[in-house]
Amino acid sequence: MERHFDEELADLKKDLLDMGYLVERAIGNSVEALRTLNSQKAQKVIIEDKVIDECELHIDERSLDLLALRQPMAVDLRFIAMTMKITTDLERMADLAVDIAQRVLELQGAPLLKPLVDIPKLAVLAQDMVRGALDAFVKGDVNLAKKLILRDTEADALRNAVQSELINDYIVKDSSTTSRAVPLLLIARHLERICDHATNIAEDVIYMVEAKVVKHHPEKLKHNT
Amino acid sequence: MERHFDEELADLKKDLLDMGYLVERAIGNSVEALRTLNSQKAQKVIIEDKVIDECELHIDERSLDLLALRQPMAVDLRFIAMTMKITTDLERMADLAVDIAQRVLELQGAPLLKPLVDIPKLAVLAQDMVRGALDAFVKGDVNLAKKLILRDTEADALRNAVQSELINDYIVKDSSTTSRAVPLLLIARHLERICDHATNIAEDVIYMVEAKVVKHHPEKLKHNT
Repeated sequence: MERHFDEELADLKKDLLDMGYLVERAIGNSVEALRTLNSQKAQKVIIEDKVIDECELHIDERSLDLLALRQPMAVDLRFIAMTMKITTDLERMADLAVDIAQRVLELQGAPLLKPLVDIPKLAVLAQDMVRGALDAFVKGDVNLAKKLILRDTEADALRNAVQSELINDYIVKDSSTTSRAVPLLLIARHLERICDHATNIAEDVIYMVEAKVVKHHPEKLKHNT
Repeated sequence: MERHFDEELADLKKDLLDMGYLVERAIGNSVEALRTLNSQKAQKVIIEDKVIDECELHIDERSLDLLALRQPMAVDLRFIAMTMKITTDLERMADLAVDIAQRVLELQGAPLLKPLVDIPKLAVLAQDMVRGALDAFVKGDVNLAKKLILRDTEADALRNAVQSELINDYIVKDSSTTSRAVPLLLIARHLERICDHATNIAEDVIYMVEAKVVKHHPEKLKHNT
């Protein structure tokens, strides 16, 4: 029994959202490993990265099969091609969760420098942005994508707050805190970069939808700008 | 007069290599701006990032046109799809060169903490890896891709050397150096992450070539593993 192309596209969307969920979870787990300084949890993030790598390959293969067998045009072609670009971003985000987990391993052997406040907020923001970017993509929702791009300044502000607190209140006042402060500072950067990747996806969504609109429905452009 | 598909593919390769050259140049210029603490050069890297963003859009559009008009199969389909994945990586690498340029702007107003030794080496390595990854891709050269992946440990070692020198010889000994040391430490991380992206491309090349071989020419597998 032949499957419908629409069903295949729906499956592809589902696979992409599942991959996004794994990336969100990796971000959450890496920061939970940090909060509890739990090296086992950090190791788990590093090991589970292989599953996310596999997702990228699987989704890309499915996409290539759809391109080869269905020879889709216009909107569908653009959607499938962009799916393969987004898996690249998601895989790189998961690598950043691995970077966070590696910083957690570097922090073993001494208590956390301070109770974490802004880093968990930044992690939640990163997770929201990953989910939001994929949502905007599968729904072709330009307004959501535009809102996400604005949230990137929140990420910058949180990262700045983490960095200046660590530098001014810890390292400069007592340089013996450096080896415990620098990994935290880097973790804030890793999280900010995850937000950057999500922003990049959101920008691509706007381009995808508005280019489509401009090309095929110029009369609709005013609703999308 | 109709153009040949082979010519179109050759043009696509050329565009991708041109984009790679711009990314290499952005890396070089950002580290030159650092070496000379030249804020104008740093601004130039930030402004010229728009050109690289345009390259991504242009190459992706060309790729989509080829997919739609030529409906390529097998190796060519895979090549075009991967081109669009690689432009994602190249654009993110250029963002990292912008990050470096922004650190240079943060460093204005005081001399460099120390003469740079390992950071320029890391920049040259990053440039080599970008060029090598694209070379491996356009030639489908698995051996070159495998060599590049091994060089990622060089990047880690250089970044480690920069980081421990800055922490142990500067920040810990004299915490008033922190504001000049941290941007350098982050720049080493940005460069290392560029190398990571190049490594990711090299891994994708191996997958692309070996998956192709396994699928269509299993008898050739032994030459590629």
